[in-house]
Amino acid sequence: MAYVTSDITVSADGFGAGPNQALEHPLGEGGEQLHRWMFETPDENAAEVAAITAADAFIMGRNMFGSGRGDWDPAWTGWWGDDPPYHKPVFVLTHHPREDVPMQGGTTFSFVTGGIHEALKRAQDASGDGRIAVAGGPGTINQFLTAGLIDELRVHVAPVVLGGGERLFDRVPPGRLSQVSGRSASLVTHIVYRAVR
Amino acid sequence: MAYVTSDITVSADGFGAGPNQALEHPLGEGGEQLHRWMFETPDENAAEVAAITAADAFIMGRNMFGSGRGDWDPAWTGWWGDDPPYHKPVFVLTHHPREDVPMQGGTTFSFVTGGIHEALKRAQDASGDGRIAVAGGPGTINQFLTAGLIDELRVHVAPVVLGGGERLFDRVPPGRLSQVSGRSASLVTHIVYRAVR
Repeated sequence: MAYVTSDITVSADGFGAGPNQALEHPLGEGGEQLHRWMFETPDENAAEVAAITAADAFIMGRNMFGSGRGDWDPAWTGWWGDDPPYHKPVFVLTHHPREDVPMQGGTTFSFVTGGIHEALKRAQDASGDGRIAVAGGPGTINQFLTAGLIDELRVHVAPVVLGGGERLFDRVPPGRLSQVSGRSASLVTHIVYRAVR
Repeated sequence: MAYVTSDITVSADGFGAGPNQALEHPLGEGGEQLHRWMFETPDENAAEVAAITAADAFIMGRNMFGSGRGDWDPAWTGWWGDDPPYHKPVFVLTHHPREDVPMQGGTTFSFVTGGIHEALKRAQDASGDGRIAVAGGPGTINQFLTAGLIDELRVHVAPVVLGGGERLFDRVPPGRLSQVSGRSASLVTHIVYRAVR
């Protein structure tokens, strides 16, 4: 079986994105403050940043891939430019079929219309039962958490109150977690959980 | 001016108490799991536990003092027995006046009907502008946070998903926090914030 991880940065009040996500603010209003720790203090957090993209395959929701809805704009190839930071197969959850989009550097975006279990199966096949990262957004991570499919959840808590938006753990059923480790840097506290099954 | 602190333990999904608080489960359903870190690993967390009651005066909501509503039952003197752990003046927010209740060990419960600003004034007078702790519950802390009256917020994140209950930061307006420090022990991650004004 593949080992499934997920990284997400949340505000002190638990939001993985602020309110009113749109093309001009893809992380919602105020959401860009979530990632100050990555951009302002990369040296303090080099290991945690590297771990986010250290997987053999990735799964993400359509909302993380782009702000569009409905039929695809074939010109849209993600937020990340010609050489996205994944360098591996990326499976995008969508209701709208689309041909694979190969990018520079080894990233290929494939589009999965059958839901999270199909995406996981395809990521497992692509990764050779290696490491799979559920890259987000919060709604997609919550679906995987609810289905009990995340082995290791790495929560990065940023010192900001967003007051609204998309919550990590929204509608995830109650249960105990195992806290594996945690530490604080200047602009973030990292907490690693494993699910208790 | 007094220095105002607040300690609160929250679940990974941000609840300071579980759903359906009642006399038989004052922290709500599942809420007792929040405090495993205090009871199962006290040596690991001795400094943080001691800091919770290291103040010159305390403020708490009525719900933290007891499960009753409406007129007072004069036999009720809190959850803590004859010698509560505060050993200082404790101001209880309520809509129902009540005479002071002196306890053993230096704790006196006084009942404040004028809201959080009156409670803070009385705690300041009683503490000689020393340290004031807003002891909870989450609703009371949220009122103080919204009013900008907390200088230092110490959040203790427990590895459990409660799935419902009373949220820290509920309806607190957006804003940046300053993360002062943080560390993880076996069953908790401690994060200390200061408000950015």
